[in-house]
Amino acid sequence: MARANTTKRAILDAALELAATKGITGTTMDEVAELAGVAKGSLYYNFSSKDQLFEAMLQEGVGALADSLRTAKGELRGWPAIEALVRQLLDRIVANAPLAKLMASEIFRTDRAWQQTLFALRHEALAVFEEAIDETDVPAGRAGIMASSVFGAVLLAGLEWLVFEPERSRDEVAAAILATLRVRPTG
Amino acid sequence: MARANTTKRAILDAALELAATKGITGTTMDEVAELAGVAKGSLYYNFSSKDQLFEAMLQEGVGALADSLRTAKGELRGWPAIEALVRQLLDRIVANAPLAKLMASEIFRTDRAWQQTLFALRHEALAVFEEAIDETDVPAGRAGIMASSVFGAVLLAGLEWLVFEPERSRDEVAAAILATLRVRPTG
Repeated sequence: MARANTTKRAILDAALELAATKGITGTTMDEVAELAGVAKGSLYYNFSSKDQLFEAMLQEGVGALADSLRTAKGELRGWPAIEALVRQLLDRIVANAPLAKLMASEIFRTDRAWQQTLFALRHEALAVFEEAIDETDVPAGRAGIMASSVFGAVLLAGLEWLVFEPERSRDEVAAAILATLRVRPTG
Repeated sequence: MARANTTKRAILDAALELAATKGITGTTMDEVAELAGVAKGSLYYNFSSKDQLFEAMLQEGVGALADSLRTAKGELRGWPAIEALVRQLLDRIVANAPLAKLMASEIFRTDRAWQQTLFALRHEALAVFEEAIDETDVPAGRAGIMASSVFGAVLLAGLEWLVFEPERSRDEVAAAILATLRVRPTG
């Protein structure tokens, strides 16, 4: 059991690292096996196809992100919840930059075998933001677009930080992002 | 001249359409030639390599975006400029959804032959937002992260709209995004 989990872990990590640099389309199963240090037979024993591998990888990565957002929100409501979610998402982006890059590039692809999975996961992660926004006084039906807006602000600013301004502190970046955000009823 | 321009145009449009669906890595020169309806010789006569083709495509697309943002800002300063830029960026996303999708996926790739070009273009588009943010009272040095934050909010919410909630009106989406944004001094 431990052995299998270690192998799966190595494969998922290698797949993520390669895809973050070369894109999913540009990544081959041969490269995944090589970087993971496993035989090709073992790779295909664990994941029957490249589609299945990347679906599992996104499921795990985005699922863990959604869980961590849910935990960060906890009992908080409205704006304090949004502040906590912004900080948590930023921490997750730093902790897993390859996943953040991959999400930015995959989130609106509509041609993938794992589209349904990604759609469900995306919805799960955004739902926590949507809930917090709904707890403020926004008109019904707007929270979805607003959640994407807040999520997009943090995702792009977080990647900007990692890729182009890594010398800044997390608190400084969180403050700069929060200084561009508010949630108020739309008119 | 007219003939050459038409051919180039067809090639650039085909390359963008294919890349928005399949990613740049997943797009071949054969497919570009076929969709553009040009012979392969003509394709390579206009663009000597796939890298050169996509560099030209991004240069044109992101360059035009930056120009349109600059025009939208015009003489406006501070928050009114930001409101105008949000609406303009949203209009550009609707007018050229494939480019918006491609930007979301390419903007943080650091392994491309055209990285320098993309970096310069990205900077050019963000600079207009940065300028407007600088015209409010934000502390020096924060405007870069804040510009990415605002740009990210509009890009992701705009794509959310196009891909998942196309029945909404542009004004409704602009209002929802603006309801999540403000720019205030941090600290």
